[in-house]
Amino acid sequence: MPTLTVQLGTRSYSIHIGAGLLARAELLEGQLQKDAVCIITDDNVAPLYLHKLSQALAAFAPRSLVLPHGEPHKNWRTLDFIFRFLLKNSFGRDATLIALGGGVVGDLTGFAAACYQRGISHIQIPTTLLAQVDSSVGGKTAINHRHGKNMIGAFHQPLAVIADTATLTTLPPREVSAGLAEIIKCGLISDEDFFLWLETHVQELLALDPETCVHAITRACEIKVAIVSEDEREQGRRALLNLGHTFGHAIESALGYGEWLHGEAVAAGIAMAADMAVRMDWLKAAEYRRICRLLERAGLPCKPPASLTPMRILEHMRRDKKVRSGRLRLVLPKGIGQAVVSDDFDVKMLGDTLAGRPV
Amino acid sequence: MPTLTVQLGTRSYSIHIGAGLLARAELLEGQLQKDAVCIITDDNVAPLYLHKLSQALAAFAPRSLVLPHGEPHKNWRTLDFIFRFLLKNSFGRDATLIALGGGVVGDLTGFAAACYQRGISHIQIPTTLLAQVDSSVGGKTAINHRHGKNMIGAFHQPLAVIADTATLTTLPPREVSAGLAEIIKCGLISDEDFFLWLETHVQELLALDPETCVHAITRACEIKVAIVSEDEREQGRRALLNLGHTFGHAIESALGYGEWLHGEAVAAGIAMAADMAVRMDWLKAAEYRRICRLLERAGLPCKPPASLTPMRILEHMRRDKKVRSGRLRLVLPKGIGQAVVSDDFDVKMLGDTLAGRPV
Repeated sequence: MPTLTVQLGTRSYSIHIGAGLLARAELLEGQLQKDAVCIITDDNVAPLYLHKLSQALAAFAPRSLVLPHGEPHKNWRTLDFIFRFLLKNSFGRDATLIALGGGVVGDLTGFAAACYQRGISHIQIPTTLLAQVDSSVGGKTAINHRHGKNMIGAFHQPLAVIADTATLTTLPPREVSAGLAEIIKCGLISDEDFFLWLETHVQELLALDPETCVHAITRACEIKVAIVSEDEREQGRRALLNLGHTFGHAIESALGYGEWLHGEAVAAGIAMAADMAVRMDWLKAAEYRRICRLLERAGLPCKPPASLTPMRILEHMRRDKKVRSGRLRLVLPKGIGQAVVSDDFDVKMLGDTLAGRPV
Repeated sequence: MPTLTVQLGTRSYSIHIGAGLLARAELLEGQLQKDAVCIITDDNVAPLYLHKLSQALAAFAPRSLVLPHGEPHKNWRTLDFIFRFLLKNSFGRDATLIALGGGVVGDLTGFAAACYQRGISHIQIPTTLLAQVDSSVGGKTAINHRHGKNMIGAFHQPLAVIADTATLTTLPPREVSAGLAEIIKCGLISDEDFFLWLETHVQELLALDPETCVHAITRACEIKVAIVSEDEREQGRRALLNLGHTFGHAIESALGYGEWLHGEAVAAGIAMAADMAVRMDWLKAAEYRRICRLLERAGLPCKPPASLTPMRILEHMRRDKKVRSGRLRLVLPKGIGQAVVSDDFDVKMLGDTLAGRPV
């Protein structure tokens, strides 16, 4: 079982990756207190794994709370539902929340832990591929605001992350593809060899071959962990992890959250960032085609939805958290295996990318 | 002009105390960026000081947002009103919020800064005595939940605190008294000489004598700063600053926020904690009377409101953030000038205090 460590001084923690870890309560040894554990999950995941996890943690007499599933619920209303439950059940500052589910459950639970009584502990048990390789790692938590995705949130590191790859077998294929988008992104921004490996293993990943999955998740987490350990609060290099996300968030927010999966929007965003990079002469046209081909083979889109006009996407991009002094900043690939943050591009160029004009 | 420093490593900051500081923009030199400043205030304070502050900061072209005043508005609704304003006006991660007002404005603004885009900077310019000696210092921010006061919040240190004592002249006398409650608390928990000084200067303080006020605010801040620098996130000693607050919060929350001022509820709470301490043999009856007498001379209550039954107060006390493994913990004075956190008391004793039975 691979175990990675996120090095953040007193807030360092482990990421355990492997099949069947959900039932391995000993991984959380010493991190929980009896009568002070609350498992938070959603109505998709609860019927599948809540009983198993509750059983494994029976010694701590955990309570559990089931949220409605999906991105449209990643908002204040659901957060308040969590707060109400915690207060009514007299959870104190010694409580630990356990997020059992995908990115939405993880983000909501993490942000609830960040704010409840000014901060309590939490543990991430991600059950989707996207959450295992991305959202559960690194301490970013948030809710959406109707004026922008992930606009309200906190950096709040978990006590531990447990990625049980056996939970991926119950994922709809569309969600597997969505997770692959973030894995492909990791290769693209910092590891050409991994990108190449993905090109030769994408079929096994879609088929959820256990060993191939563990390798891909581990490598993606390693890449993310290396960056986060260096720049926890995104003052610099961490922004690279947002490749495809400025376009992607704009697509999600313009379409209405939940219409496209986050990973699907990111995939289109990666392709658009690559298209921009070709216009900037940072990427060869052949590399752009390789990127699109890998995304397509992973079952992902390479273009924004036809229903969105370029203006509409741009309007939502302007609300990105990377905007500084009113200037939009984009993460763009420089070849395969490297990326940069840049605000040094022509607006016309961006317009051409958004409109899908040929390079 | 006294300037104190809160020593918190990279998050250290200055507290400036003196008359007329509101117009001294140079105190914020190097901390603000043009077009990235938002002053947040309320409809009580705006007509008095917003223009003056905006003028002083004119070089940064600040925007401003006026909130409805009062504790009942320290909730998610008002917080969301701030988020909406910031998003609609495209404030980015480089923005700084300036809280101009009392504790409610300070807590709301600080928490908004903690969560907006996962954390931006803020500056506290407290205009009430209570905010100058207590809520603006130390980085505690929060909103209330209908199930408990300050239950949702964050530790988020400001870039600077500017306490302009000239703003106290426009305070209603009841608010001056409320501020004195926290000042008296500071003497009681850690400085007998200061407590004595307060006994001889309470009249000048009520009359807002400028020099006396600067001394009292400076000393109270020094006491708080020393404790916060040692224990920012209230793992231990910082809890002492909550003397009177477990009782006080329960009173506020049982009465409905805004009925009693926070300082008034804390005053009754201090008297109740002192009453408990007499029952524990930690305080002499004569010391208890001295404490009550000072509170009364400061225009403050020494008993909870007659409308609240002991059971009702106890019910609200159980939701206190200091509860651990279901046990209530109270801050109690040990003589004058010292205090301890204890869960080692008889429930009957607490019942007697709540019921106002003679010791």
